[in-house]
Amino acid sequence: LQVFLTSRKCVVEFSLGVKSLSEAKNAMVAQSGGPTCAINSSLSGVVSQASKYVEIDCMYGALYGIEGVLHNRVVNLSDSLKNPEDFRRLESTPSACLGTSRHRLPDPSEDIQVYERIFETFEKLNIGYFFYIGGNDSMDTVLKLSRYAAGIDSDIRFIGVPKTIDNDLDMTDHSPGYGSTAKFIAATFVEMTCDCESYAIPSVTIVEIMGRNAGWLTAASALARQEVTAPHLIYLPEMVFDCDRFLNDVKKQLLVRNTVIIAVSEGLCDSDGKYMSEYYHPSQKDDFGHTALSGVSSYLSNLVKSEIKCKVRPVELNIMQRCAAHFASATDIRESVRIGRAAVKAAIGGETGKFMAFVRNGSDKYSVKIKSVPLENVANKEKKLPVEWITKDGNDVTEAFFSYIRPLIKGEAYNVMSEGIPKRFVIDKESQSR
Amino acid sequence: LQVFLTSRKCVVEFSLGVKSLSEAKNAMVAQSGGPTCAINSSLSGVVSQASKYVEIDCMYGALYGIEGVLHNRVVNLSDSLKNPEDFRRLESTPSACLGTSRHRLPDPSEDIQVYERIFETFEKLNIGYFFYIGGNDSMDTVLKLSRYAAGIDSDIRFIGVPKTIDNDLDMTDHSPGYGSTAKFIAATFVEMTCDCESYAIPSVTIVEIMGRNAGWLTAASALARQEVTAPHLIYLPEMVFDCDRFLNDVKKQLLVRNTVIIAVSEGLCDSDGKYMSEYYHPSQKDDFGHTALSGVSSYLSNLVKSEIKCKVRPVELNIMQRCAAHFASATDIRESVRIGRAAVKAAIGGETGKFMAFVRNGSDKYSVKIKSVPLENVANKEKKLPVEWITKDGNDVTEAFFSYIRPLIKGEAYNVMSEGIPKRFVIDKESQSR
Repeated sequence: LQVFLTSRKCVVEFSLGVKSLSEAKNAMVAQSGGPTCAINSSLSGVVSQASKYVEIDCMYGALYGIEGVLHNRVVNLSDSLKNPEDFRRLESTPSACLGTSRHRLPDPSEDIQVYERIFETFEKLNIGYFFYIGGNDSMDTVLKLSRYAAGIDSDIRFIGVPKTIDNDLDMTDHSPGYGSTAKFIAATFVEMTCDCESYAIPSVTIVEIMGRNAGWLTAASALARQEVTAPHLIYLPEMVFDCDRFLNDVKKQLLVRNTVIIAVSEGLCDSDGKYMSEYYHPSQKDDFGHTALSGVSSYLSNLVKSEIKCKVRPVELNIMQRCAAHFASATDIRESVRIGRAAVKAAIGGETGKFMAFVRNGSDKYSVKIKSVPLENVANKEKKLPVEWITKDGNDVTEAFFSYIRPLIKGEAYNVMSEGIPKRFVIDKESQSR
Repeated sequence: LQVFLTSRKCVVEFSLGVKSLSEAKNAMVAQSGGPTCAINSSLSGVVSQASKYVEIDCMYGALYGIEGVLHNRVVNLSDSLKNPEDFRRLESTPSACLGTSRHRLPDPSEDIQVYERIFETFEKLNIGYFFYIGGNDSMDTVLKLSRYAAGIDSDIRFIGVPKTIDNDLDMTDHSPGYGSTAKFIAATFVEMTCDCESYAIPSVTIVEIMGRNAGWLTAASALARQEVTAPHLIYLPEMVFDCDRFLNDVKKQLLVRNTVIIAVSEGLCDSDGKYMSEYYHPSQKDDFGHTALSGVSSYLSNLVKSEIKCKVRPVELNIMQRCAAHFASATDIRESVRIGRAAVKAAIGGETGKFMAFVRNGSDKYSVKIKSVPLENVANKEKKLPVEWITKDGNDVTEAFFSYIRPLIKGEAYNVMSEGIPKRFVIDKESQSR
């Protein structure tokens, strides 16, 4: 890892004698969990803010989340991100450009060696600050690391930065990444409605949206009603799904309109707690042992086809909904940069074991401030859509939800374009690592 | 239909005595075939150009293609589209706002009454010009109508305006609608690559793209290589699909990279001429009796999962690819308006039984001119991707294809935004008709 010691900033400051190398510390940042449009924006905020402090020398990026720390796969971000153009492109690049991971740390009581290896890497790189951008599982990682650090009297500071398209993180008004996916879903529902309504024959379109246990994204489809009548029915994982009631709802809709468009969460469960997707793909598991959730729209389409006998089309928004950076929310991207910056400020201010959260100001005009909360208040918890924001019939959302979500999708994020396609920032994970 | 006789333009011109009502004729326009992002732009071009001629009084829109003419479902577009803002919103609205149809006219020898009914509507509304925006099936409709008109000595002029995301219309350099879908596919491949590459584990993503018999859209995925290495394999319907060769190709790719992203056409067939989708959904037909083509990506994903045993994800771009007006090509939208205008000019100039086509100018700087060609040269024909633009291995496209497609996706089309969502132009098909 000698290459890092020649990093320009360290050398310059050392030779100018502004401070000795032993006083300044390096920092490390990593990304974890499912990709979003905004996780690189928070990375941008962390890196740019860190460059303002004499307390921080180099900013390292661990590749593939905590696994990069474990396996010594680290890049020097102070070298990769230099001019404003780099940061702009990073902020318009979807997914996690450092790579991501779903690796969960064991308890130190089960495997202390994992922690020893991680802190060995920290020591070798003279890390004083560690920032982890992720969801509720990832916050468990930061919490465990900060507790271990306290146990060994390490003075490394650990800060969690939120991200998840699912918006299911507790203690924060909303999560970076949610607004962009919500915006894409809303616009796509408007466009799909234009498409489906152009045919004279009756049809049912069933659109499957991400969110295993929380209906925040499925509910976002309702924003399309600014422009069209769809979605006509919304089924959220917060409510027990009943096939008979569903078929009845669809039949009623077909009495009043030709084109019925339905939003369904991938995580719908019946009264036995069984995922509806399991009826479509029995016993299929994803790579992490979770039940594979895709297939709800196909299952329900087959049901409508056999019971109602009209044209039915299943649509999965699939990974497009979490990476459509070409139509990201400017509000989301701006706030994601800001919360990354705030994480660095908090760490420099002496905080550790904290998670950064948005607090919505109470006035009519939307604005947020950022506070830090203890990690144990957020790790492993899931915030569901409040039941009072779901209509009594269980197939729609109330006006309160609209007031909540409308500001989050405002504005179109900037994209650097080249020959008709957005340009993306790339970190060469192969050549720079080790 | 009395309501139309009070249309402002007719009345004003009549009262001013510029010309007598009997001299001027009305015009009619309709949309047909699968929706695109640009079919409303051509409608905009037809309506705005028609308003410039004293020879044309009102512009009527037939709802749901030729069926609107048959069933007397007509709206007055001169009333609906008044100011520049209306036209701008129409041009940024995807799909066919007049409604569309896949109805095919019988031969007059089989059913003369259909033609009599259509021409009765034309006569009642004093139609002198008929514009039909559609693909190769729709051009068959215009051809039949123009031949019937010639047979009965009608002086109504019939002009076909091209549209199809599939780009399979003959006699034109490219078709309105293709550039926008190609642009969405290219950007989405870049974004999906960012998403898939963020994981450290080997994975294969198989993306299914529209185009029953022509690979123009599947090939467009290659444009993503401006920014990323994907797609790594491209399978087009022009080539016989072989499962063993496919599995071999995938295995080879997995030797050199972790993340393999594959573009497949929905219309892939094996050497028996059987659609690969039929192996996934045996005997499933769509509403027009065609074999349902979706499912290729799911079928091939299952194949890879069982034969190669790695993480595999099927993705269908589904109807999103044909209605993503929020990211339409400015070039496509501009040209689509222009070809609509040219159709009106041709009709006013005395042409009938013609189809409007783009001719690419030979110079280095991309530009097109528009010419008219006889409808019989284009109706019912399909233009496939030239074999010389497909690599010898049959799983990629050559440089010549890039030179062809690059100009077509340039620029981002204008969208009127409202609260973070594009505004759409809506014609109320229920209240205005009859």
